[in-house]
Amino acid sequence: MSMNKVRKQQLDIILQQQGLGALLFWRPDELVLTLGYLPHWGISFLLYPRDGEPVLFVPELEPEDILPAGVAVHTFPWGILDCPDPWEELYAGIRAVLEGRGLHRLPLSFVKSVGRSAPCRMAAEQAPLPPDLTERLSLLSTDGYRGSDLEGLYMVKTSEDIAALEVTHRVAALAVETFYRNLQPGRTEAGVAASVEATVQEATGCEGVYYARAWALVQSGINTAAAGRFNRTTGKALAPGEGVLLELSICVNGYWADITRVGQTSELPPAHKKIFDIVAKAQAVAIAAIKPGVSMETIDEQARRVIGEAGYGHLFAHGLGHPVGFRYHDPGPGLSPGSKQLLQPGMVLTVEPGIYGADIGCGVRIEDNVLVTEDGCRILSDYCRNLTI
Amino acid sequence: MSMNKVRKQQLDIILQQQGLGALLFWRPDELVLTLGYLPHWGISFLLYPRDGEPVLFVPELEPEDILPAGVAVHTFPWGILDCPDPWEELYAGIRAVLEGRGLHRLPLSFVKSVGRSAPCRMAAEQAPLPPDLTERLSLLSTDGYRGSDLEGLYMVKTSEDIAALEVTHRVAALAVETFYRNLQPGRTEAGVAASVEATVQEATGCEGVYYARAWALVQSGINTAAAGRFNRTTGKALAPGEGVLLELSICVNGYWADITRVGQTSELPPAHKKIFDIVAKAQAVAIAAIKPGVSMETIDEQARRVIGEAGYGHLFAHGLGHPVGFRYHDPGPGLSPGSKQLLQPGMVLTVEPGIYGADIGCGVRIEDNVLVTEDGCRILSDYCRNLTI
Repeated sequence: MSMNKVRKQQLDIILQQQGLGALLFWRPDELVLTLGYLPHWGISFLLYPRDGEPVLFVPELEPEDILPAGVAVHTFPWGILDCPDPWEELYAGIRAVLEGRGLHRLPLSFVKSVGRSAPCRMAAEQAPLPPDLTERLSLLSTDGYRGSDLEGLYMVKTSEDIAALEVTHRVAALAVETFYRNLQPGRTEAGVAASVEATVQEATGCEGVYYARAWALVQSGINTAAAGRFNRTTGKALAPGEGVLLELSICVNGYWADITRVGQTSELPPAHKKIFDIVAKAQAVAIAAIKPGVSMETIDEQARRVIGEAGYGHLFAHGLGHPVGFRYHDPGPGLSPGSKQLLQPGMVLTVEPGIYGADIGCGVRIEDNVLVTEDGCRILSDYCRNLTI
Repeated sequence: MSMNKVRKQQLDIILQQQGLGALLFWRPDELVLTLGYLPHWGISFLLYPRDGEPVLFVPELEPEDILPAGVAVHTFPWGILDCPDPWEELYAGIRAVLEGRGLHRLPLSFVKSVGRSAPCRMAAEQAPLPPDLTERLSLLSTDGYRGSDLEGLYMVKTSEDIAALEVTHRVAALAVETFYRNLQPGRTEAGVAASVEATVQEATGCEGVYYARAWALVQSGINTAAAGRFNRTTGKALAPGEGVLLELSICVNGYWADITRVGQTSELPPAHKKIFDIVAKAQAVAIAAIKPGVSMETIDEQARRVIGEAGYGHLFAHGLGHPVGFRYHDPGPGLSPGSKQLLQPGMVLTVEPGIYGADIGCGVRIEDNVLVTEDGCRILSDYCRNLTI
């Protein structure tokens, strides 16, 4: 196995068109996008040069069995006693490859910020990147840093990406089922969230699942009214007749899904049920309109019209959806007012209308991940989206 | 309640000694350190000026009930449809305060990097910080950015910090007990880790616990041999007569503990048990030596001598311990060879000797969090550290 051909072609085009010597990738989501590799420590660097094969630099302590096949791997010392300056060794290694291929006089490009990136496997703290990393990387070429549009790479998923996202969504199905089965009065929001996250982690070792972690945010009753501003989990106990909202982000082998469901402990008050039905209709209408060639804003409008006609347009204050797959929220245009981008096969987008507010004392969002196909779309998260399973 | 007095004095001294107009704090661990506040979105900014009261800038979508008392709060728009550029509003807000107090001609200081910082509550992706954040913040003063030693603030915990860390360690006790009680052959490493993490999250809502999350990394049998290079969880099933290592990082209300235990499914092979006994002795000897005025390297030496005399010095390739409390690994000097820093009351350090390697086919680390007191030390994580509970 080596790097995906479609992705290689995209990178080669960027290098040629922008006159670059090499691209550098080090954000965890970028390494998944290029190599299908979610780093352990978060300090792995892929050098993708204009000429010759790419080289992956990883710290000596990186687990060998997670390294991608089909790419040359160079290690640098890091994290042990008496270790020399790891960063000097890394920079020297990258420089040696560039000089060896005569590329050190052409500009380098990479994403400078860690903002919004996916966490590496060691997610309990930010990766130990040195403060002057981007300045130092810029100095590896005598022509320095040049910006380039690497965000465009996230837009269309390859067939390998889609196969990986199907695995993620198989695990997510278990999480959603656990959610519905735990909505007993007396359970706390935190207890339900813990059960959902445990279901995901327990899938590690199942066929094709090497790494699985979820962040479940559970809001119940009056707490759902805030779900348009923030999702979080508290220690509140579920009461009878309450709506319960699950915001689920889940990463399996580096590939992400982002799903929302609303369930009930027992029959909802009619006012809350009415909101649920409007949101469900808005989502169904929007998904039915998804096909290649339609603009993103058109899909947003479909859902927004249903909610607006029901009189709740002012309580749907966010866009209808965003790209997803390499992280919780992929960059790039989404299903939002004013987004002229046309849908293309291979795009994966969330569709997540919502109505929430203190005015109505509750909140509902239903969110699925939809793959644009040649002639329409397919819901990757096509599991129960009713109030009860 | 307002900002801790000891901490305020420390900040005032930094401002005076270094001729600064203001300090800016925005990393999650810095906001816990200054305000006891763990941000939800990770884009909150504390402006601590030389003159007048501090101001906390938070996004409009931040939950109100987690905001700290006793500090002025200004909001900026972020995350909603038709929102103006949130960063321009933030920068303008900070500039207005500086100008209003005549401080905009003095240099500003802050930590430029997110490297190694604690995650905010929305931990499934990095906070949405703009790529040019530190450049733009530097421009808020006509005298620009000046570096300062803010890492020193992490070294000695205040009495409020210690009270908060005691809450964290109460929850961690439940996690450690869950670990021991789940070491049945046939359970997977991932299953054990999921149970440990669930125990922590389920504590949310218990007395004094508003936010609780853990990352449990579980290695069993031969997998423990790698625990000196990396900790992680796989789908491997536990077998009879295996050692099982738990690396636990846990955050409660923003305050962290970092604990390691080794248990067994049933009686360990004598060779593995022998390693366990050496590590346990090394840890006990080191902890017994901890008191104010002793150098950090001396404590490291105590443990290293026990392990060296047993013939395993080459398999203990990391330092004995590091500061902990505001994040998984606090910055600053630790219990390492060559560390001349003297111990002071209020320091909280891990003590974590280990022996691991493919040579011996196993690995053991025992890790506790120790508070230096006026006349010795107190183990904050003083729970079972035997092979069975």
